[in-house]
Amino acid sequence: MTKQNQIEMGVLRVLTLEDPEDVSLHGRVIEQQFPHISTTSRCIPDHPEGIPSVEAEEEALPYIKGLGREMATDVDVLTISCALDPAVSTLDNEVDVPVVGAGASVAAIAIARGETVGTLGLESGTPPIVRNLLGDRLGATETVEGAETTNYLTTKEGQTEIRTAIKRLADAGCDVVAPSCTGLTTSGVLGDIGSSFEIPVVDPVLAMAAVGTTTVLPITTASEVEA
Amino acid sequence: MTKQNQIEMGVLRVLTLEDPEDVSLHGRVIEQQFPHISTTSRCIPDHPEGIPSVEAEEEALPYIKGLGREMATDVDVLTISCALDPAVSTLDNEVDVPVVGAGASVAAIAIARGETVGTLGLESGTPPIVRNLLGDRLGATETVEGAETTNYLTTKEGQTEIRTAIKRLADAGCDVVAPSCTGLTTSGVLGDIGSSFEIPVVDPVLAMAAVGTTTVLPITTASEVEA
Repeated sequence: MTKQNQIEMGVLRVLTLEDPEDVSLHGRVIEQQFPHISTTSRCIPDHPEGIPSVEAEEEALPYIKGLGREMATDVDVLTISCALDPAVSTLDNEVDVPVVGAGASVAAIAIARGETVGTLGLESGTPPIVRNLLGDRLGATETVEGAETTNYLTTKEGQTEIRTAIKRLADAGCDVVAPSCTGLTTSGVLGDIGSSFEIPVVDPVLAMAAVGTTTVLPITTASEVEA
Repeated sequence: MTKQNQIEMGVLRVLTLEDPEDVSLHGRVIEQQFPHISTTSRCIPDHPEGIPSVEAEEEALPYIKGLGREMATDVDVLTISCALDPAVSTLDNEVDVPVVGAGASVAAIAIARGETVGTLGLESGTPPIVRNLLGDRLGATETVEGAETTNYLTTKEGQTEIRTAIKRLADAGCDVVAPSCTGLTTSGVLGDIGSSFEIPVVDPVLAMAAVGTTTVLPITTASEVEA
């Protein structure tokens, strides 16, 4: 940590956004929940559509690795705010700070909280990193119908669609939901209607930040907090 | 949350301790790392030896359930600071707030951070909850030799023994360590020598707190943090 109790966290967005406020949205959600985290957000260039598929990921990897290497020099921990966890393993091996992805994080937090996990995506399919990590704890997968854009999720129709999808996961025997796309955080809908779901829904960006906090040890140690 | 950004977290200790400072040690470690968490710690009665084995767990369960029910009424999230996760599922189903255990949490955070997890215990064996959650990602298990008491861990010999055990886990191909006993947090040794290990070592108490933070949604939502 750069100073007592303060964690400098890099938030790498894999979607090209023009407005700095949009770039830093996930970072602000993190700071809102974790007041001791200070975030720096940057996005890769030339990808206004993000990486909507595993195929698109391949092409974006050099951009993510390049930006990740730059950002890693100024932070205590680097997060890649995408549930595909693109370039996370490569960067984690390469740079001097821990690198954490939203995909492994949301899957991990979900299995810490429930026996049977339902994934919820905006596109069809669950990212391989999430599927692999969940293993036989993956109970069901749902896609939010009509969610071609995250803007849709903030509409009444979109929120109803999310509720319905979560209800289907609960009916399928899932006892926790792992949203497998950070667009669900971007939409604000998890915060807006989060506590009203019948089963817990993990926020993928907050899961990533929570995992990130465990990678940075406090300056003071347990022996020092003894009275 | 009871007020903006502040999480009230119960920390239930399954070891009977006389000194309130000892009871609250894990809570203070959590508050040190997460300044927005306010902890309340209590311990079960009549168990000065804690629950050193799965067998001893059975006998202690009614005490943990009784105390857990009491503590749950005053907190946003209840944590059971023991890697056996005793009574966690029962309490989580029964009380009105989320209940999180150290065992599932340390296992979950470890698989978010590495491919092959080594567990490190003070007694022989890895708790079933940890073993089940890790599945085929459990690469190796080590026991700290000579650690009949956690006091030993704070000695030079004890710390050397821990380093040696972690090196054996790394040599066995593990790329992250999940200590499967919260006594390793009590000893202070993870904080003292944590960043000097060759592979990351997850603190089980901080892992539990990190998972706990994800169960409590911020009052303000993503849409409200938009500029």
